[in-house]
Amino acid sequence: MQFTSLNTIADLVAVLPVFDETSVAAAHVRQNSLTKPPGSLGRLETLAAFMAGWRKTARPEINRAQALVFAGNHGVCAQGVNPYPQEVTGQMVMNFQAGGAAINQLCRANGADLQVIPLDLDRPTQDFTQEPAMSEAETLAAMQTGADAVDTQADVLILGEMGIGNSTVAAAMAAAVFGGEVAAWVGAGTGSDAAGIARKIAAVKAGLARHQGCAGMAVLAALGGREQAAICGAVLAARAAGIVVILDGFICTAAAAVLYGTDPRLLDHCLIGHQSAEPGHAKLLNAINKDAILKFDMRLGEGSGAALALGILRGALACHNGMATFGEAGVSEA
Amino acid sequence: MQFTSLNTIADLVAVLPVFDETSVAAAHVRQNSLTKPPGSLGRLETLAAFMAGWRKTARPEINRAQALVFAGNHGVCAQGVNPYPQEVTGQMVMNFQAGGAAINQLCRANGADLQVIPLDLDRPTQDFTQEPAMSEAETLAAMQTGADAVDTQADVLILGEMGIGNSTVAAAMAAAVFGGEVAAWVGAGTGSDAAGIARKIAAVKAGLARHQGCAGMAVLAALGGREQAAICGAVLAARAAGIVVILDGFICTAAAAVLYGTDPRLLDHCLIGHQSAEPGHAKLLNAINKDAILKFDMRLGEGSGAALALGILRGALACHNGMATFGEAGVSEA
Repeated sequence: MQFTSLNTIADLVAVLPVFDETSVAAAHVRQNSLTKPPGSLGRLETLAAFMAGWRKTARPEINRAQALVFAGNHGVCAQGVNPYPQEVTGQMVMNFQAGGAAINQLCRANGADLQVIPLDLDRPTQDFTQEPAMSEAETLAAMQTGADAVDTQADVLILGEMGIGNSTVAAAMAAAVFGGEVAAWVGAGTGSDAAGIARKIAAVKAGLARHQGCAGMAVLAALGGREQAAICGAVLAARAAGIVVILDGFICTAAAAVLYGTDPRLLDHCLIGHQSAEPGHAKLLNAINKDAILKFDMRLGEGSGAALALGILRGALACHNGMATFGEAGVSEA
Repeated sequence: MQFTSLNTIADLVAVLPVFDETSVAAAHVRQNSLTKPPGSLGRLETLAAFMAGWRKTARPEINRAQALVFAGNHGVCAQGVNPYPQEVTGQMVMNFQAGGAAINQLCRANGADLQVIPLDLDRPTQDFTQEPAMSEAETLAAMQTGADAVDTQADVLILGEMGIGNSTVAAAMAAAVFGGEVAAWVGAGTGSDAAGIARKIAAVKAGLARHQGCAGMAVLAALGGREQAAICGAVLAARAAGIVVILDGFICTAAAAVLYGTDPRLLDHCLIGHQSAEPGHAKLLNAINKDAILKFDMRLGEGSGAALALGILRGALACHNGMATFGEAGVSEA
């Protein structure tokens, strides 16, 4: 998948794979033959059917799960929006590479291959309160990096991010796509106090005023960052390969929401791993009409909630594929 | 642990292990040193601290997870309370033993050793609308079987059950322990229609009328069943060994609720794996003041929701034990 212009992203909808209702129907037939009361596995059955539709088989498997964590730095940190210094982005990338972060443990525990991709950390985006965060060329390049990182042989792709300042970026993107009170999109992020939150709100308002009227993929260039662009690229490349995506929390979902704002169908193959404690995430999930798999008051990012949800998806498919039918087990039906 | 009388169960509180606040404090110190904003792993941090307190170490591990599924048959089936024939209990036990049920797949996926223990399936309890379901001796024998099945070397114990008719038994036990409208404790179970639910309500009301005023452990003999008694025995034996228990859904929690009614502290070491779609479960969790780990609209029993939650607990401990500290990783703090 090659990206040449932000204006043509919406056109991808016409050529990308769609959900296969025939496979879903076959998956439901199987589910109703398994040794359990119909529907009694609840959301696990829904998840198995979702996998069936996108993997185009009645009995989808997870033989390969990939996790991609994109990292970027942000010019808007000049507005004092984060309690941690900007060098933490690069330090955390080293921590990811050394295996010491939460995402490393959760990928290992749930069987995902993790790759961490730093995006020009020594060249932060521009401060979006002053000018566009990225040029179109920079945006497309980061999207391409994200798309090219996708392992087309994977069955599931977990997406996550790291970037000091990026809860402010996410709030700005969400507000630009869906409107509403700026304060409702801004939260404490990694731990801002009231004064820090006020600075975040002011920065988002300034960014929205400066880039008034920007819509669709233009939001990504105006207010986003490289890790957000890479997430968008990876979401699209996964769709092209028929891979189910598990998005992580507020920042990851806000990045993907730009695709939703461009055409809602671009996120049809995406699950939401967890609902973050960051208050804007519930609002964002409502806006894109998706329920999270887990709700654990997590607010770390890195793909941590998505990696945890992978274990649930594995459980759903273990039941779907491994259970005996009433006939096989000689169990009487109702 | 030997059970000799239902009247002396309450006395166990005085001799059973209690939560170790020193280990919890040490676990919190560790959590706050790990490379993440403080508290950002949300409920995963709470779960790790819970494990620390009961396993009496700042860095608890799950080296062995045991799953016990107890099965029993119920005289109250004579009241037409279930859409499936009673022989399904034994057929499902064979399915468990052959590896074909949901609990088999979920134990394999989440690393638990499963044992299935049928309890006198050819000798159902008495119909509680007519007489006590079990004698004290029968109740104690089933409790003992449950207690003796606990692997004292396990770190975590998952409990589940199978027994045609036992959502009616659970509703009766919950109503006897906590009172309230009978109809609020009765649901569709494995799939009762409105007429079936009406029969369940009538049976529970008849049972409560016949055994009016029964309280504490006497509820177990009057209205319970062998798998419920075995669950109570296993909960107590696990506590004696300092093992954290993950209870499953409505029926499993209702069984344990008899212990709560005897002394609430008897359930202090228990987590709730999931909140069932069975409407009485939310009410029951509220009554015993516990939140479920997962909420997936599951209503299968067998320990399925508890086994799924084990994966979450593993993720919590993977982070707690495996993550680098700020110092180790050279990451700047806020």
